[in-house]
Parts: sequence; C-alpha cells; structure tokens
Amino acid sequence: ELGIELVCDTNEELIAKSDIDGVLICTATDTHASLIVAAAATGKHIFCEKPIDLEISQIDRALAAVEQAGVTLQVGFNRRFDPNFSRVRQHVSDGAVGGIHLLRITSRDPEPPPLDYVKSAGSLFQDMMIHDFDMARFLVGSEITSVFAVGAARVDPELAEFGQIDTAVVSLVFEDGTLGSIDCSRQAVYGYDQRVEVFGSEGVAWADNNTPSRTGLGNKTGMHAPQPLHFFMDRYTESYVNEISEFVDCLRNAREPAVTGRDGRMASIIAAAAQRSYAERQPVQVSSNK
Amino acid sequence: ELGIELVCDTNEELIAKSDIDGVLICTATDTHASLIVAAAATGKHIFCEKPIDLEISQIDRALAAVEQAGVTLQVGFNRRFDPNFSRVRQHVSDGAVGGIHLLRITSRDPEPPPLDYVKSAGSLFQDMMIHDFDMARFLVGSEITSVFAVGAARVDPELAEFGQIDTAVVSLVFEDGTLGSIDCSRQAVYGYDQRVEVFGSEGVAWADNNTPSRTGLGNKTGMHAPQPLHFFMDRYTESYVNEISEFVDCLRNAREPAVTGRDGRMASIIAAAAQRSYAERQPVQVSSNK
Amino acid sequence: ELGIELVCDTNEELIAKSDIDGVLICTATDTHASLIVAAAATGKHIFCEKPIDLEISQIDRALAAVEQAGVTLQVGFNRRFDPNFSRVRQHVSDGAVGGIHLLRITSRDPEPPPLDYVKSAGSLFQDMMIHDFDMARFLVGSEITSVFAVGAARVDPELAEFGQIDTAVVSLVFEDGTLGSIDCSRQAVYGYDQRVEVFGSEGVAWADNNTPSRTGLGNKTGMHAPQPLHFFMDRYTESYVNEISEFVDCLRNAREPAVTGRDGRMASIIAAAAQRSYAERQPVQVSSNK
Amino acid sequence: ELGIELVCDTNEELIAKSDIDGVLICTATDTHASLIVAAAATGKHIFCEKPIDLEISQIDRALAAVEQAGVTLQVGFNRRFDPNFSRVRQHVSDGAVGGIHLLRITSRDPEPPPLDYVKSAGSLFQDMMIHDFDMARFLVGSEITSVFAVGAARVDPELAEFGQIDTAVVSLVFEDGTLGSIDCSRQAVYGYDQRVEVFGSEGVAWADNNTPSRTGLGNKTGMHAPQPLHFFMDRYTESYVNEISEFVDCLRNAREPAVTGRDGRMASIIAAAAQRSYAERQPVQVSSNK
Repeated sequence: ELGIELVCDTNEELIAKSDIDGVLICTATDTHASLIVAAAATGKHIFCEKPIDLEISQIDRALAAVEQAGVTLQVGFNRRFDPNFSRVRQHVSDGAVGGIHLLRITSRDPEPPPLDYVKSAGSLFQDMMIHDFDMARFLVGSEITSVFAVGAARVDPELAEFGQIDTAVVSLVFEDGTLGSIDCSRQAVYGYDQRVEVFGSEGVAWADNNTPSRTGLGNKTGMHAPQPLHFFMDRYTESYVNEISEFVDCLRNAREPAVTGRDGRMASIIAAAAQRSYAERQPVQVSSNK
Repeated sequence: ELGIELVCDTNEELIAKSDIDGVLICTATDTHASLIVAAAATGKHIFCEKPIDLEISQIDRALAAVEQAGVTLQVGFNRRFDPNFSRVRQHVSDGAVGGIHLLRITSRDPEPPPLDYVKSAGSLFQDMMIHDFDMARFLVGSEITSVFAVGAARVDPELAEFGQIDTAVVSLVFEDGTLGSIDCSRQAVYGYDQRVEVFGSEGVAWADNNTPSRTGLGNKTGMHAPQPLHFFMDRYTESYVNEISEFVDCLRNAREPAVTGRDGRMASIIAAAAQRSYAERQPVQVSSNK
Repeated sequence: ELGIELVCDTNEELIAKSDIDGVLICTATDTHASLIVAAAATGKHIFCEKPIDLEISQIDRALAAVEQAGVTLQVGFNRRFDPNFSRVRQHVSDGAVGGIHLLRITSRDPEPPPLDYVKSAGSLFQDMMIHDFDMARFLVGSEITSVFAVGAARVDPELAEFGQIDTAVVSLVFEDGTLGSIDCSRQAVYGYDQRVEVFGSEGVAWADNNTPSRTGLGNKTGMHAPQPLHFFMDRYTESYVNEISEFVDCLRNAREPAVTGRDGRMASIIAAAAQRSYAERQPVQVSSNK
Repeated sequence: ELGIELVCDTNEELIAKSDIDGVLICTATDTHASLIVAAAATGKHIFCEKPIDLEISQIDRALAAVEQAGVTLQVGFNRRFDPNFSRVRQHVSDGAVGGIHLLRITSRDPEPPPLDYVKSAGSLFQDMMIHDFDMARFLVGSEITSVFAVGAARVDPELAEFGQIDTAVVSLVFEDGTLGSIDCSRQAVYGYDQRVEVFGSEGVAWADNNTPSRTGLGNKTGMHAPQPLHFFMDRYTESYVNEISEFVDCLRNAREPAVTGRDGRMASIIAAAAQRSYAERQPVQVSSNK
C-alpha cells in the first residue's frame, strides 16, 4: 500500500529517488514541462501546478511523456474542489438546472500583483483567467468553441505601456450551445470576489463569496456585513487540501484524477484564444487540435 | 397651473382636443412615430412607450417634429425610476463606486411571449434588451461605443426557424473605457430576474431581485425563500408610477425629462448594432450619427 | 349594493347620518368605546383603531353594544394583513411548520415618542406591545395562558421617574403548550425592526425586515445594505390598505372580519397581565373572563 | 520552553507522570471534580470539559484545589472561540453596539440525544443551555442577576414522564440592566441553529448560522439554500481548535485563560437557578455566593 510522507529536496535529487511514488511540481511555470518529462521518465506520478506551460507545444511534449510512461498527471485547478463550486456542479449533474442556457463567472482579485510580476507573467488571460476557463468547462461539462475578449488597463493605466491589461470581459460559446460570460479584474477593493452562476431550463444554481464570519452590524449608517475572505490562501484553503487528497486517492486506487493533463491543455488553448481575440478585436474559434 | 385629468379617446379625437396639454402614447410600436408627429403638430407634450420605432429613420422623423414644435418628449424607459436601479445609479453619482471598470446586467423574463408575438416583434435585442441598453447607459453615464452579441434559441429551438433567438450575451465597451456584459433570457423558471452590478475603483454597487415577501421557511430539505416577483407589472409597479410623475412634473416646471427622445434613439441604435453583431458574428461599432 | 365613498365630518354628525353603512374610528383611545356604542346604536358597522380602550370594563361595554346591535366590528390590528406576517401565518396553516414549539417576536421602534406622549399613553405593554400580543395569538393560533414580563428604562432613564419603561422582554405560554418570547424597544437606531419566527416539529418560518431597496454597496470598509424601512407608515402601508379592503369586503359579504372585537379584547387583557407581571415581578395567568 | 505532545493513557497513569505539564479532562461529568483535584495535586495545569460538575459544592472543591496548587484551569466553553460569536463580542467591546439593552440567543440542536442519555444527563438547563448561559455572560460582559424559565416536552412528550423537557425559554436580567432571552430546543429539523443578537444604544450585532456552502438553487418551487451545518462537530470545529490553542498559549505565557474556573462555576449556578425557576414557576435570583 501507498504510504504518505512528504519529502522536500532539490528537483534533481527528488526525481532520482526510487522510493518515491509521486511528485508535486510547484515551481516556476517555465520549469513545469521539463520537470514533468523528467519525473515521468523515472515512472513517478505527477501533480503539477497550473499552467503546465505558456506554450501549447511544450504542454504537448509534457503530455506525450506522461502518456508514454503511463503515469498519472493531475493539474492544479484546485477550484474544482472548492465546496461552493463543486456544489454548483453537483446541482448541474443532478439535473436541477436542466439544460444549461447561460454561464456567468465573476473573478476579481483583491489587489494587483507587483508591476514586475505582471510584466513577466503571461497575459491576464493566461495568468489569472485560466482558472476561470477551467471552471467554465467544469461547470458546463461541454467544450468552449469560441471566445470574444475585450480588455483594458482600468486599475493601473501604466500597465498599457507594457501591453498588459487588468480588466476583461470574455464571451463564451460552448459546443452544446450554452452561452457564457466571464468578467475579471485585478483589483476588487472589497476583497476576493469569486462567484459563479449556471442558468438553465429548470433553474439557476449559484455560488456566493465566503466571509470570515456570518455576522452583521446594524447602526445609524446602515446594515454592515464582512467583506469576502481576502485572497486565495484563505478562500481556497479547503480546495487545496481536497486536491492533494484527490491526488493521493488516485495513486492508491490507480484511477484517473478529476483534473487531467488534457484539462490543463484545454485551459491554456482557451487562454491563448482569448488573448488573440483581445489583440485582434475579433471572436476566435477554439480548436483542441491547435 | 396644470391640472391633472386622464382622458381616454380615439387617437385622432384626443390629439384634436385643444384643452389637453400632453398625451401618453402606449399604442403598437409601428404607430408611435406618426402619433408623435401628429401630437407635436398640435403643440402637445408627449410621453411615448419604448421603442419610438424599429427604424432609426422613423425615430429621426419623430424627433425632428418634436424639436420643431418645441414640445417635451419623454420615452418610457420606466426602469430608470425603479427604486433599486436608481439607488445603484445614486451610488455611482455619489462617487461610492469610484471610476467604473465593469458593468453586469442580468435580464431574464419568467416566460416567453406567444410564438405569434415573437414572430412579429423585433429581434430579442430590440424587443427585450432595449431596456438593458438604456439601463447600461443610465448606470455608467457614458456612451456605448461597440457591442458584440452571441445568441441562441435555447428555450424554444423552434424559434430558430423564424430567425429568432431567446438567449443572448452582449459584451459592451463604453466611451470612458468601462467594459460590460448583459445576459438575457426569455425564460427564467424561478421568476423575473432583473439584477445589475456596477464595479469600480472604490467598490461595487448592486441590485438584487424584489420578492413578494421577506419570509423564509427552513425544513428537512433546506432553507427556502420566495421567488422574485413574477413579471414586470409586479416588479415595476413603482417605476411606472414614478415615470408618469416625472412627466407631469416636467410639464409643470417646463424642464427636460430624465429620459429624452435622444435616449430612446440611442437605445434603438445600440439594439440594431447588437442585432447586426449577432448576424455577422463580429463586434460592431455604435455610432450616434447612424 | 354597497358603494364606497369616504365621508369626513364631526363624529356626531357622521354617526347621525342615515345613508352611511360603516364608520372608521381613528380618534384618541379614550373616545373609542363611547363612539362604538353611539355608532352601534344607529346600526352602523364599525372599524376601530386599537386599542378599543385601556379598561377591560369599557371594552366589554362597547362589545355588548356591538353584539346587541348586530353590527360588524373590526379592530385595527393591521399587521395581520402585512404580506410578511400573513405569509408566515400561511406556512403555519399549511402545516409547513408542524406542531408549534417556539415563537419569537422582535418589535423595536426606530425612535421613542415625545416624553409628553409617553407620560399620558398607557404602559409600553398597552401602547406598543399590544400589537405583538395580537401577532402572537394570530401566528400561533392558540390563546396565551400566562405571561412573565421584565422591563427597564434603558433608552431614556428619565422615563423611570414617571413609572415608564422603554425596553421589555415578555415570556409567553400558550394553551397548546407553545412557548414564546417577545423583545421590545422604543429605539432601534438602525430603523424599525419588526421580525417574527415560528418554530415547530416540521421546520421554522420567519419574516425579516423590509428595506427601501434591495441594493448593496461593497467597499474597503465592508459590505453595506440599507436599513429597514424607517417606521410604520412606510413599513405597513400595504397592511393598512389591506385591512380597510377587508372591512369593506366584510360589509359587502356580511361576514365576520379577520380581526374581531374579541381579538381586541384579548390583546388588551394580555397587555394588562404583562403590566401586572412587570410590576409584581411574578408570572401572571391570563384569563379571558377577566 | 513548553513542547507540545499529546499523550493518552489511563487517568491515573497520566496524572502520575512527572514530565507532563497539563492535562485535558474530557471524561464523564461525574469524574471531572475528582480528576481536577488529583491533577492539581501533582501541579498539572488543567483543561476541563464543561460542566465542572452538576453540584456547586463539588465545583467549589475542585476550584479550591486548583487555587491551592496555583495551577491554571480552563473550562471548555469552546463557543467563546467561535469566529462568529467572538466577532459579535468584538463589536460589543469596540463600542459599536453602545450600551446594551437586549440580548437574544437561539440554541437548537438538530436532534435529541437517545432517551437513555437524557434520563441520566442533568436537566436541559445544565446539559445544553449551560453553553448559552456562558455565552450570555460573555457577550454582555455583565453578571446575570435573575432568571425566569418556562419549559415543556414539546419534541418528545415521553420525556415528561422522567421529569425532563426539550424546549425552553429563559428570560434574563443582568447586573447592568440588560434584559435577555434564550430559546432552546432539542430538535430543529433543519439543522443546528446557533444564533445570537446583541442590541444596544448604538446598534445591533448578530451572528447567523454557518452552512456547508454559500450556494443557492432557484427553480419553480422557490429559492433554496443549504441548511445550517448539522451539529457541533462541524459547526464548532474551529472553536475547538482555538480553545486548545488558547490553553497552550496560557501555559506558555503563564497567563489566565479566557475561560476560567469561575466562569464554569457561574454557568452552573445560573443553570441551577433556571432549573429551580422552571420547577417553582417563579423568577429566581442568581447569587454567586450560592
């Protein structure tokens, strides 16, 4: 049976060890693909943070190595394991929403990262909205076939000098005919705003924000409630724990993880299409063969 | 001073009367422009239901007659007078939202109109979303410069045979740089769903749905609350009263109404642009000179 | 058939008129009983504001006159006609709450009346909580058999000099075994706070406060919602309209009103018992034969 | 410095060990006092589950041993460490509520314990409401001076045969003049219902229930939200962790815990007074010298 022990070491030493079943790759994005290839080569199962790579060709190289080695690869789209979003997905799976007509996702960070990070990170679509593209596929259960993106540097106009944006709205069309919209911002001054809504022929299912307490205060100026939990470490604590449990469980039971390498690849393809749509001011088709 | 008395008569007789100060035009859309012209010709102030006409050229004919006669024209975008939406607009005006970054509007009817109506009505954009385009301009306080629309016959696939849709998502770009999104459906089985959200540098302001009571029921199956008020007669009772009060007040004080002929014209131009965007699968520029 | 026309006149002249079917008595409390007797003597149906009188003997005199004349008497416990509370009562009637175990009522005014009013008004129990005692009987559908009241001058300590209080908690025991609690204050700085909750074997039904809009504002200091509607004229507009409709309907259809003279009498008996409990610091039995 | 290691052993062996700084007493209630005395005798710091004992004399014996030994005693009123209730208390401490006028506590279990447990446990007041009495003292920050309790076997009438009740309402009067009310039930079919509300001269602070997710579902039958978390293991997970952290921190920093032996004693005195009030159908004074 599989024992659980957490070992930290340099990448090379860790991958070289023969008494390790799986590795968690949480390094800088541009090292993911090579580490996946190296780990797969030694037969290790792999959990890798998102995105697998900014280049689809690198992603394909990594996935090919995983397939050849026959190892398990789980990609770190932790939000699928969040109790709110998994409950909404369950309403969809149960048929409580019926045939899906519309999807809405609101994805707003409480504050922008340092300018240096933004300059070197991929586009807003690849760095931040990639989570939302995965969430869209997860909630609707159908592939995205086209996207149209508008964006602007609304929070920090300086970003425009570096060809970056911090605010975006992306329209989605799904293979099954569902229409969707994601709105995204780098700065919600009231806290981390992470909401979804799935609307269909039988009803609507939604997830609101979590707050540090369920308390309120009423006084002469109004009724006041706490802001949403500030950022991802607080908001997604449970989903981070759940995704690692999923990885361990997949290894123990030799089953496919809930978030596969293909999911990682598709989210990156959609992000690239959104970036191109934004740049060309045109709707862009999303093709899984890209 | 202006007395208030409601007189109902045939259109011709009403317009011919010399002791009437203003008329309310609530007839079929294709009669609006001619009735406006006739009423203006006799010097009567005019309240006209939306849309003024489906053709911009007809709207321009009506507005020219109004301008020449120097009478007041108020267009029936009643939702601006709804306590929820006017409160959100007030938060924007007060500066509580700061510079606006994003706008979201959800506009869903509880049930589709009869198929015969849909066949003869204008497009979903002209018949239903025209209210939302006006709301978008009202809330943001800036003109819409481009739209991109996706649509589908999700509720009733038969509609597609008549070139009609019942579900749509429209992306908006405003002159001041704000980005927006409107989602629309002819059928929300849980009731009339009319929500807005304005997000900016200082915060977010939103309006939820009204319900027949503020009651709840908790039992073995969960916690249950009432559906939103069913349709526009219940939901917008107060705004209908308020818009007529506004009209009377404008006549009494010889001032411009909160919703002018130009507002009616702009909403129609945006609706036409959205319809063209949907048909051509391309973003479309919105020009007030169209 | 009964026509509806509102006639205002001096009390004597109004009661003397032979072409009037019913009267609305909305005068000072100490005139109610005599006006009821006078109106009944001329065969007029009567709507009378609460309380009928501060003295049970006077109430009995009025009810006897009504009974002898065979006219209809409706007492102004308007809150029974409020959409929130009537919805909670409907949940009880439908069996959705099951057998009732607990009742909670929160009854808080936004601001105290002028000191002069308080000095001459009846006790807090008779002047303000009488509404809550009627609501308790209405919601539970069983008679109150004993009360225990504690009270204090918390808002305005000066009141104590006049033997008055502005804050109270009353425990209730009902004939059917239900237990209840009412809390009451003359001053809720956040607005008029009027909530109820009925808890039983199958679930819980509750009513929250109404607000002027369903809007919210989120910013750096939290998430903010509007205060409850400020006072009874705003909060109970609909229930005032409904209770008069009920009165007219009762006259038209010669049926008993939803709030009878007996209801008015019982609420006064309970209020008197609560006042005695407060004064004697003992639980007090409530007897309808008092 | 104090190391943390959890050692489990028989009571005698554990207390005999010399290399242990503190013990957690989580055994049956009737063993608490003797174990406290034994642990104190060997100089160990003590965390003890509530109640210390059902008899005040036994509590006094235990507290005397603790005082003589100069060890720390923390009593397991974990709810003080719940994020909801500690946030409400913070609003009170911050002055946001002003001078307190009213306190409301709702305390309802999702389901009654087995009949055998109920027969041998103390009264509802001692077994279940003791938590609420401590919460009342914690939130108001003043001592309770008198109680009046009404109770009934509403959930399970069989309980009456054993002199037990499952439903109660307790009125409270505090030393500082605050009035309060606690309602309690052994069975809320919609889940564990744990709410508080503190009302004062400057406003109102409240805590609602926690739920497993912040999701909703709207359909033809209404808008549906999840039930509260089912029972104390889910609802108070965080407060259990926090109270043990507090105990460890007290030992490390040689300071008094937030919940002392005196707090344990006072809650038991109030519970005994409530039981006597229920039995004698009279308000009962609460004396700390009892």
